[in-house]
Amino acid sequence: MEEVFAPTERTRVRRRPQRAAYDRETVHAILDAGLVCHVGFVEHGRPVVIPTAYVRLGDALVVHGHSRNRTLLAAGAGTELCVAVTLLDGLVLARSAFHHSVNYRSVVIFGRATPITDPDRKLVALRALTERIQPGRWAVVRPPTQQELAATAVLELPLDEVSAKVRTGGPIDDADDYALPVWAGVIPLALTAGAPIADAPG
Amino acid sequence: MEEVFAPTERTRVRRRPQRAAYDRETVHAILDAGLVCHVGFVEHGRPVVIPTAYVRLGDALVVHGHSRNRTLLAAGAGTELCVAVTLLDGLVLARSAFHHSVNYRSVVIFGRATPITDPDRKLVALRALTERIQPGRWAVVRPPTQQELAATAVLELPLDEVSAKVRTGGPIDDADDYALPVWAGVIPLALTAGAPIADAPG
Repeated sequence: MEEVFAPTERTRVRRRPQRAAYDRETVHAILDAGLVCHVGFVEHGRPVVIPTAYVRLGDALVVHGHSRNRTLLAAGAGTELCVAVTLLDGLVLARSAFHHSVNYRSVVIFGRATPITDPDRKLVALRALTERIQPGRWAVVRPPTQQELAATAVLELPLDEVSAKVRTGGPIDDADDYALPVWAGVIPLALTAGAPIADAPG
Repeated sequence: MEEVFAPTERTRVRRRPQRAAYDRETVHAILDAGLVCHVGFVEHGRPVVIPTAYVRLGDALVVHGHSRNRTLLAAGAGTELCVAVTLLDGLVLARSAFHHSVNYRSVVIFGRATPITDPDRKLVALRALTERIQPGRWAVVRPPTQQELAATAVLELPLDEVSAKVRTGGPIDDADDYALPVWAGVIPLALTAGAPIADAPG
């Protein structure tokens, strides 16, 4: 049971707890399949949610941005964060309006992030972010200059207080509704890549 | 200029303001293309972010859920919300690690939601949510019972304090880097539907 994140008051899934997961393998798989997270924090007592790219690096989520980015400044200052990653896997068409749903995999992380300032660790994190866009990319592109590194803030959020929630499969209709002459099922959805578009030389 | 949301202190985009948009057409188009939003609110002084399906209905965002859902309870009680919708459109591969990016369209909404309790308006909202999953669906499925309606909370968040942010196009490299022998360009990404999977009768 070492591989399980202990549910806390905040991460314990209350609605439909049968869809919750707290094991590292599920959490990591969802995080590794996503590209964008939503970072929530409190600013002047009010909620702010900002989308940003991320990568999982070991047992932490890593985000980066301009060193003057307000989200990163707030996060780097130790503000409490709630970060959500959601993958939409399908539309669930039931026989009743009420049971329509979506299939998804989501992870919610609570915690405080810390800036990665050590130059070597910062490079490792930036490499991971770049390789997430395309594996092998780091070796072929121009590496960051000292000025670029200084202009980039990199933060890590430990995967300590984490939960996952997953819905899969077809609709769950009321017993009486299965006899209705209505098509029911799932329309799978996936984020898919199109043909690459080469950039014209500048 | 009636079609423009006046930027507020919270919605004015500070990082890369050239990517910001405040016009109704852009905001509506992004919201109408998305299926899942991330709802942020403050609970006991701490941020919470929860993904949920939504639909735009006129000048409001509509979400729904079980009437005991904690996000909806908090939101329905007039809690301040920040709701973000993000569509990932592509991976941007630059000639330098630093200029790698993603193409996206996002909308951020600040405000307070109110429950839709009028039975007729509630049905209109639920119909819009169902039709968002598949146009024409409402007419063919079993409509909600009184019990189902009572178990469903529907909230609307007015589109008053709203901003959009959009990145499109290829990488923007440093002048000196265009001579590097590195493939650069965009890998388009889109959420695409697969072949429908019919549900086995129960």
